Amino acid sequence: MPKTMFKLDLSKPMEGQAHPGHNRWHPDIPAAFSVNPGTAFRMECKEWTDGQIQNNDSPNDVRDVNLERVHVLSGPVYVNGAKPGDLLVVDILDIGAFQEYEWGFNGIFAKENGGSFLVDHFPEAQKSIWDFEGIYTTSRHVPGVKFAGIIHPGLIGVAPSLELLNEWNRREEALKATNPDREPPLANLPTPESAVLGTLKGADFDRVAKEGARTVPPRENGGNCDIKNLSKGSRIFFPVFVDGAKLSVGDLHFSQGDGEITFCGGIEMSGWIDLKVDVIKGGMEKYMIKNNPVFKPGPVDPLYTDFLVFEGVSVDEKDGKQHYLDANIAYRRACLNAIDYLKTLGYTGEQAYMLLSSAPVEGHVAGIVDIPNACCTVALPTQIFEKDIMPK
Amino acid sequence: MPKTMFKLDLSKPMEGQAHPGHNRWHPDIPAAFSVNPGTAFRMECKEWTDGQIQNNDSPNDVRDVNLERVHVLSGPVYVNGAKPGDLLVVDILDIGAFQEYEWGFNGIFAKENGGSFLVDHFPEAQKSIWDFEGIYTTSRHVPGVKFAGIIHPGLIGVAPSLELLNEWNRREEALKATNPDREPPLANLPTPESAVLGTLKGADFDRVAKEGARTVPPRENGGNCDIKNLSKGSRIFFPVFVDGAKLSVGDLHFSQGDGEITFCGGIEMSGWIDLKVDVIKGGMEKYMIKNNPVFKPGPVDPLYTDFLVFEGVSVDEKDGKQHYLDANIAYRRACLNAIDYLKTLGYTGEQAYMLLSSAPVEGHVAGIVDIPNACCTVALPTQIFEKDIMPK
Amino acid sequence: MPKTMFKLDLSKPMEGQAHPGHNRWHPDIPAAFSVNPGTAFRMECKEWTDGQIQNNDSPNDVRDVNLERVHVLSGPVYVNGAKPGDLLVVDILDIGAFQEYEWGFNGIFAKENGGSFLVDHFPEAQKSIWDFEGIYTTSRHVPGVKFAGIIHPGLIGVAPSLELLNEWNRREEALKATNPDREPPLANLPTPESAVLGTLKGADFDRVAKEGARTVPPRENGGNCDIKNLSKGSRIFFPVFVDGAKLSVGDLHFSQGDGEITFCGGIEMSGWIDLKVDVIKGGMEKYMIKNNPVFKPGPVDPLYTDFLVFEGVSVDEKDGKQHYLDANIAYRRACLNAIDYLKTLGYTGEQAYMLLSSAPVEGHVAGIVDIPNACCTVALPTQIFEKDIMPK
Amino acid sequence: MPKTMFKLDLSKPMEGQAHPGHNRWHPDIPAAFSVNPGTAFRMECKEWTDGQIQNNDSPNDVRDVNLERVHVLSGPVYVNGAKPGDLLVVDILDIGAFQEYEWGFNGIFAKENGGSFLVDHFPEAQKSIWDFEGIYTTSRHVPGVKFAGIIHPGLIGVAPSLELLNEWNRREEALKATNPDREPPLANLPTPESAVLGTLKGADFDRVAKEGARTVPPRENGGNCDIKNLSKGSRIFFPVFVDGAKLSVGDLHFSQGDGEITFCGGIEMSGWIDLKVDVIKGGMEKYMIKNNPVFKPGPVDPLYTDFLVFEGVSVDEKDGKQHYLDANIAYRRACLNAIDYLKTLGYTGEQAYMLLSSAPVEGHVAGIVDIPNACCTVALPTQIFEKDIMPK
Repeated sequence: MPKTMFKLDLSKPMEGQAHPGHNRWHPDIPAAFSVNPGTAFRMECKEWTDGQIQNNDSPNDVRDVNLERVHVLSGPVYVNGAKPGDLLVVDILDIGAFQEYEWGFNGIFAKENGGSFLVDHFPEAQKSIWDFEGIYTTSRHVPGVKFAGIIHPGLIGVAPSLELLNEWNRREEALKATNPDREPPLANLPTPESAVLGTLKGADFDRVAKEGARTVPPRENGGNCDIKNLSKGSRIFFPVFVDGAKLSVGDLHFSQGDGEITFCGGIEMSGWIDLKVDVIKGGMEKYMIKNNPVFKPGPVDPLYTDFLVFEGVSVDEKDGKQHYLDANIAYRRACLNAIDYLKTLGYTGEQAYMLLSSAPVEGHVAGIVDIPNACCTVALPTQIFEKDIMPK
Repeated sequence: MPKTMFKLDLSKPMEGQAHPGHNRWHPDIPAAFSVNPGTAFRMECKEWTDGQIQNNDSPNDVRDVNLERVHVLSGPVYVNGAKPGDLLVVDILDIGAFQEYEWGFNGIFAKENGGSFLVDHFPEAQKSIWDFEGIYTTSRHVPGVKFAGIIHPGLIGVAPSLELLNEWNRREEALKATNPDREPPLANLPTPESAVLGTLKGADFDRVAKEGARTVPPRENGGNCDIKNLSKGSRIFFPVFVDGAKLSVGDLHFSQGDGEITFCGGIEMSGWIDLKVDVIKGGMEKYMIKNNPVFKPGPVDPLYTDFLVFEGVSVDEKDGKQHYLDANIAYRRACLNAIDYLKTLGYTGEQAYMLLSSAPVEGHVAGIVDIPNACCTVALPTQIFEKDIMPK
Repeated sequence: MPKTMFKLDLSKPMEGQAHPGHNRWHPDIPAAFSVNPGTAFRMECKEWTDGQIQNNDSPNDVRDVNLERVHVLSGPVYVNGAKPGDLLVVDILDIGAFQEYEWGFNGIFAKENGGSFLVDHFPEAQKSIWDFEGIYTTSRHVPGVKFAGIIHPGLIGVAPSLELLNEWNRREEALKATNPDREPPLANLPTPESAVLGTLKGADFDRVAKEGARTVPPRENGGNCDIKNLSKGSRIFFPVFVDGAKLSVGDLHFSQGDGEITFCGGIEMSGWIDLKVDVIKGGMEKYMIKNNPVFKPGPVDPLYTDFLVFEGVSVDEKDGKQHYLDANIAYRRACLNAIDYLKTLGYTGEQAYMLLSSAPVEGHVAGIVDIPNACCTVALPTQIFEKDIMPK
Repeated sequence: MPKTMFKLDLSKPMEGQAHPGHNRWHPDIPAAFSVNPGTAFRMECKEWTDGQIQNNDSPNDVRDVNLERVHVLSGPVYVNGAKPGDLLVVDILDIGAFQEYEWGFNGIFAKENGGSFLVDHFPEAQKSIWDFEGIYTTSRHVPGVKFAGIIHPGLIGVAPSLELLNEWNRREEALKATNPDREPPLANLPTPESAVLGTLKGADFDRVAKEGARTVPPRENGGNCDIKNLSKGSRIFFPVFVDGAKLSVGDLHFSQGDGEITFCGGIEMSGWIDLKVDVIKGGMEKYMIKNNPVFKPGPVDPLYTDFLVFEGVSVDEKDGKQHYLDANIAYRRACLNAIDYLKTLGYTGEQAYMLLSSAPVEGHVAGIVDIPNACCTVALPTQIFEKDIMPK
């Protein structure tokens, strides 16, 4: 096995680890370790909230979660020889749960604390616990389904340059300024509150905590992309913005539906990930991979091939207002249609919502030009249900 | 074989057919024929522009296309016994090209006449012709690729009730009114210009032509969903809004990438489709299928499993402005990233753009909650390229 | 569409066609037409018995079939420039049923006339008619199943050289001589009875009829391989033994299970096939493709992924005798186990047997070294059954 | 994680373990532990030769292997309440390598000691070491290939009744007696030599060692089926022959090609397996699962879909002799054809042979009725090769 280069004690918070990880993006967060290109290594990861959510039946921990704490990441890894302009090649060799923590959680964030994709329909916090049994998972809170996980890191990314970081902060502040009091907020700006920054201390800590970008959105560095097919066996090509690339990873999901619609999230878990890194010199320009990472999915995703598919278009369900090619609304309508259908099978709306966020559900942009309606689809794998779910 | 119930002469425009089809949605367009539940039948379809695009190397016909003419549809079919509140079950038994017209086209609409998803990057009209060779297609205008088609109807839907039609017109007019002079327009409102309405004549024709909704957007009745996996072997469940359901179909695609991003469109073709219909009485309420159709894809989509995937987030590429969970921008960025990459392989931007719109490209909503960035992905099947396209 | 180069009148026997095909292998059977490399063309094919089996409910036509008549083939095609030592590249562009004959048959041959894989268990003739509905088939004789066909030519091959033909006749005569009166026979030797030899006449006809190998077995030239995945989209590489290669094709199957165990056979049908040919000069030596063809399957086989799998080992079920790594017995036992299981679902043995021979059933050589038992498996796709077939 | 109920010290031979496993089948081998239906548990397994093969470049250990020692199994597990006539339901929840032994081996047995499927072509011992890197494996002895493993137990089975055991011994002795001196032998009969029988001692040991069936062949109890798709996520239904069913498992493979043609074998490894058991009372009669186990494969096999397929027919390559529907010879010819082809790519025959035995190669019984030739195919996944392997 690859050597464990980032080791955690799950009973302690991230700042209490032998080598703490981090929960902000900043070029000055010190590397936790360095490796040469061609090296494989293991990193251990805590679930994204740093242990705030418990394996019980109360959603209160989801309701009251401290979101300044997310996402606690493992790393950064300094890859020797990687320079700005290169591509960092990352192979996800394998991922797994810890044998003593074979469970995960999905939750709906409350409107007042995080919110979610369908926040106006589901403003209250809710939680489901998912037990892992080998490759499968089931939940006492969402009965009648069982599926194989497509385990993946919800978040994997490299450090931004200072210039890029400044650009992030500029553009997100500008957005937030358009409606600073909105609940949930339009953007999460840098805050020293609950910041964990590796081994940084003193004035450096204070400066980086004040400048460091939150890890919530995906950006040019990859980050919190929540791509369910970025699973074991995948190869990712990251643009490199700083010396050593400074790769970090976390937010492991046992499974996730496209969109991660409840926000919290896929099936969130602690676990380990085996990575291997390499460098393509000058690859950013050569392959024009500059704006975002590119990847090749692995070959072992579950073979679900039988789906029931729901469509949605960009008309607001609340007021019947027509929007222009709005894929967000179209996907929301598709998800709401799926939830309405699942309710006819006996699920509560909350169960159906968490199932869509947890199971290997496929969300597609079907048509994005047929003015004024975008058409999005959400596809439920029928083989995950104990009973036949087709209309008769 | 199923009996051909809707027959066309491809050399004549739709209004010149023995029984003309239609290019507007309205409950009063007379049925072309009626069938009992359980019946299979064949319908012939013209490509969506009614023959305006030629198999040649000039994009001028795409540039100058009369868009008031689209989409010429075959039908409506009156299904005996179908009543509002029922579900119409439609099996797509098979679809094919005509043996004497084994080619199709993809085109980029000009900004002044239709526009497209990447209109600001590609404002000029362009065209590619795709030749069919059995299950495969290739193009002299986009060399180096060959793929199996997932043939599907871009448009299939049922007639709206008058009430539903009025709602469509209301909401689309309201959108258009927010920026009536925008180019391309925010919505296409009803117009008698180039309307084809089956056998309607006189005052009825004039009234319906004035009221009938354009077929461009997908809506509650299905319609122009442009879902590439709604292919042969699929079963669709439509809500029924009028007596007889009044099913119509057209806009056949030999293949399409998710999003149909050039607008014109997938690989557009004339051809035939074999359908079988049935009715689930009272199914709309029982299964809560009221807002949009639901479907089960067929089992014979091509087995492409090896992809190169591009990501995009909701930051506008033109001004770096941050948008809030905008999946439209995120998908646009992903497509632009893919085009940049394909250009490093020797394609022009226009070729790459048309390829993304034509090949079995997968577009996913990956993450839609990680404020403020939506993350969308576009996945290129690597097996369709003659050469290895992976970064090295 | 490709030009139809071999046209049939299905109401007439093969010798009565404008250009008759053939039902023997011999280098001197004249080519029906010639094509240049790079050419696509269509050939029409009669079902293998030349019209002896009817769409009705009596198995008598299967019982009494004239097996000297099989397989009536279309061709040969002379490929200009192909020489012995080359590889003939054949693309199967598409295959389909005739619109006016959308049905096929499966039959169990009687022990006295053909026999089958499980002849001692099912010595009587039986028949099932399968109706095609687009990509799907169902049978009034085997209820409760519906599946998408993997249409393929059971038989496609090139002409042998005279030397190779002599070798075939030598080795098959030697086998037959070991038990000349066995029923069913060990081999079908050349016979002028019911021979059809294209346009040959007179003394040439008599000589070739006497020498020509029967088409029943697959051999070095390909021929009756009955490979269910040699379906549309496939590319085959044939060794070339005579000038022009002389490609022939027939025995179309709408679907077949691995092994084609009832002998008659898959779902046998008349239809058309679109082929495209090319030549790799000197390819036999270069790629060491000398003994048998090599192929690449097409990408549109049905996406069945959920199977129930039955195992068998090489112990004779009749007397409990142990055989040495006998994969034939092992596969037979696996099939018998599957039939026993299907009987618990309400099927008769004959229905189950014909289903295994008709549906897209997968037969694998699992272990072939674990002395003394070979282990073979037969896998039933569960998605083809109307009801859940799993043990509970 | 499931509790580890069978723990091993890999540095010690099987008889030296705290609780030894066994390498013979006999109803009187004491259970290692018992579980209730519904229980999940982990078992550790040694590679099948009990540590005789080393991670080095010499094939001498394969040449000199003590085959009386195989297969060292973990178990038996006594399932409370299971009675003869029931079905034992076994879920393979997960399987993995030990982190400190992430490698496996494939070997060709020498003709004088074991032999293999192509023993007359490859009479000398050979070995390849395969290194695991997450889900992938590569070999310094077979360069240019990399593939994802379908990890599976080559051997999993229940104890025979004494009656069934006697039947095994009877029939295998009868076979062996037909040619007692054959090299390799026709069958491996019971021998006390190197027997390991759990905690049995004294006279009981001696009796059971003398009677116990060798584990080499698959039989009615499952056993050494070497089915590559019996991988993680699978559910197996075993007939129960003794109280408690007495389930044993071992011979883990990281990957295997259909047929396991080198005999030694797949990619042989030590590791752990997580199982869950349940019982269907009276299921043998109800479902007619009496002769062999039945299973449902798991959903996470690698998504290889692009193959190059080689055919073979039942003509002996040594003397050109025609055999009657002999699937063993047909599969051998297909494998030899594949090896000939792989040699044109630069592999030695031995490398090609070991690759066919190790990679996820598909072996099908294509046609088994076309007298006198069976047709078998062997399909190489092209995506496992670094370079394009298609003929041009």
